[in-house]
Amino acid sequence: MSHAARVSALDGLLTDAGLDAVLATKDASIAYLTGFWGLQLERFFGVAVRRGGEGALIAPSLDRDSVGQAPTALEKSLYDAAKGNGLSTLYDTLDGAKRIGVEEDHLNFARAKALTDAGYELVPASDLIMELRAAKDAEEIAAVKYACTQIIAVYEELWADLKVGDSEADVNAKAAYALARRGGSHPEPHILFGAHAGDPHGSPGPRTLQPGDVVVADISAQFNGYWGDMTRCAHAGTPSDWAQRAWDVVKQAYDDAVAATKLGNTAKDVDAAQRRIIEAHPDLGACLHGAGHAIGTEIHEPPFLVASSDTPLREGMIFTVEPGIYDSQRGGIRLEDDILVGPENLSPYPLELRVLGG
Amino acid sequence: MSHAARVSALDGLLTDAGLDAVLATKDASIAYLTGFWGLQLERFFGVAVRRGGEGALIAPSLDRDSVGQAPTALEKSLYDAAKGNGLSTLYDTLDGAKRIGVEEDHLNFARAKALTDAGYELVPASDLIMELRAAKDAEEIAAVKYACTQIIAVYEELWADLKVGDSEADVNAKAAYALARRGGSHPEPHILFGAHAGDPHGSPGPRTLQPGDVVVADISAQFNGYWGDMTRCAHAGTPSDWAQRAWDVVKQAYDDAVAATKLGNTAKDVDAAQRRIIEAHPDLGACLHGAGHAIGTEIHEPPFLVASSDTPLREGMIFTVEPGIYDSQRGGIRLEDDILVGPENLSPYPLELRVLGG
Repeated sequence: MSHAARVSALDGLLTDAGLDAVLATKDASIAYLTGFWGLQLERFFGVAVRRGGEGALIAPSLDRDSVGQAPTALEKSLYDAAKGNGLSTLYDTLDGAKRIGVEEDHLNFARAKALTDAGYELVPASDLIMELRAAKDAEEIAAVKYACTQIIAVYEELWADLKVGDSEADVNAKAAYALARRGGSHPEPHILFGAHAGDPHGSPGPRTLQPGDVVVADISAQFNGYWGDMTRCAHAGTPSDWAQRAWDVVKQAYDDAVAATKLGNTAKDVDAAQRRIIEAHPDLGACLHGAGHAIGTEIHEPPFLVASSDTPLREGMIFTVEPGIYDSQRGGIRLEDDILVGPENLSPYPLELRVLGG
Repeated sequence: MSHAARVSALDGLLTDAGLDAVLATKDASIAYLTGFWGLQLERFFGVAVRRGGEGALIAPSLDRDSVGQAPTALEKSLYDAAKGNGLSTLYDTLDGAKRIGVEEDHLNFARAKALTDAGYELVPASDLIMELRAAKDAEEIAAVKYACTQIIAVYEELWADLKVGDSEADVNAKAAYALARRGGSHPEPHILFGAHAGDPHGSPGPRTLQPGDVVVADISAQFNGYWGDMTRCAHAGTPSDWAQRAWDVVKQAYDDAVAATKLGNTAKDVDAAQRRIIEAHPDLGACLHGAGHAIGTEIHEPPFLVASSDTPLREGMIFTVEPGIYDSQRGGIRLEDDILVGPENLSPYPLELRVLGG
């Protein structure tokens, strides 16, 4: 779908939602609607669309070159961030609109307060914007698939290189470089060893790979605006009884959760599919997170596959399915693929618990 | 200062500010107060401190291992993000406090609305938290200096390798790898060539270095929790008349702005020092941004050196001073160092317009 068609589709949702306008502020939403990727830092960026489809991409004049090249047909309104905060440009764009949908999980309190004080009524509208962003078209699905092929190539390099004595910091630096060399933006490998792999969000550090260690290799990066995100596991030497059993359990949870990623199910059905397997094995470790998250122009985007979500799965949604089991002493096991509702696996690559250094 | 001393210093500001408690939600503020670096994504993380100094670090149970290792003496309150959003844990921690200081430039609208609906009165308190974070102690100054020494080593590698025909994408991937190998987190080189360097926030792409191109090499990364951020320029072959004149002007603006980074001045004085030089040369290009930003546990943190800021410079503040001049056809020139109010340059390294490929 072209950027203009997306703006038009968003406009088509405003009347039913009782909104006069909508303001998108997330980088990924701005890029989805206009093709422009910004670097926000402390400055205000937004896309405001009034009922009827008119509106503007608002950005600091600092970004004039990239804004100028953006494919959007919307007006481009630049403001001088050295002199103002951009909100008066936003007010001009809103042009009489009063009830404004905003991305409530992104717009900050200061800007929300300024808008409210200026007389606007703010209405949470992340769901509205995500209703469009969540349903990926063929081109977007191909983009996620492409990102995954690049990540798979990096796994091949990783498995060929990784050996006992390597440090997490070095291995992650190399993987990030391999992703960047292939054109990946924001490469974020999280490759952890041994007990450290029992922390699903551990930061790579000086720990070196030791015989008997499990390896959890979570690799993600953005290619041409779309993310891929995968996890595979390995073991330094013959897998311990714990590692093999944990892998078997996670593989079962993965299979069941992937099978549940289909029309007719809700987000919590997918979570339940993995959770019932993982939670049945407390002797192996803990179930510390939901089944996964949607992925596209953001690495983590709504809907989230968690026990509290009744969101129905829809055609074109892509989710990471990533059950894991974690033990602070023995480490963790996680398997993660990017699954199009169907299910169709967009990141096919052997799931095996790879044995390193024979 | 220890993490406990920082919490205590923050508590010491609450009475005068008329606050019952303060809630820090930025990663960098949380790390400053507790030593814990999280990975927020969609989940709630915060540090709540009530008047009297009691409070808690609140995080998802997913992060239990890293939270467990954090040096903070505050209570550690974990919640299950698969089942709730963490706010009830926050309410328990606030324990009757009503008037709550929040980081208004970070807390999102959804959470602010939930807090307001629950009866809390939210008060902007970024300035209060930054009053502490902005004044760096000797250890923090040394950490920024260390980050700069690592970046300088990466410049040495860059200048030794860079040659006509190299692509921006490859050169940036290599620089990111060089930073990561040295232990840098979030390496974000922005090394741009020719006309593309006229976009201060351009993303590295397939463009290759051509004879006659200017090179703007902005290199930043975080080491041990603290950022360094520098920019140097080069030219492929003998500098053009434009490049040499633009460099001369930017060097003058840099000298004047560095000299203005002293006690007794305000943020806008530093900006004025560079702006009056850059804006006097519209034939060479445009002045697209302020003089710089504070730097520490965040790469861009308040105060910002912009024309609209009356914030007085204080002892221990560290700023990037980074005047630049930009032309969409001919490219850009920017010089950037990390300057302790004094001024003292924490990133001493030759500023020269380096000539590549003799």
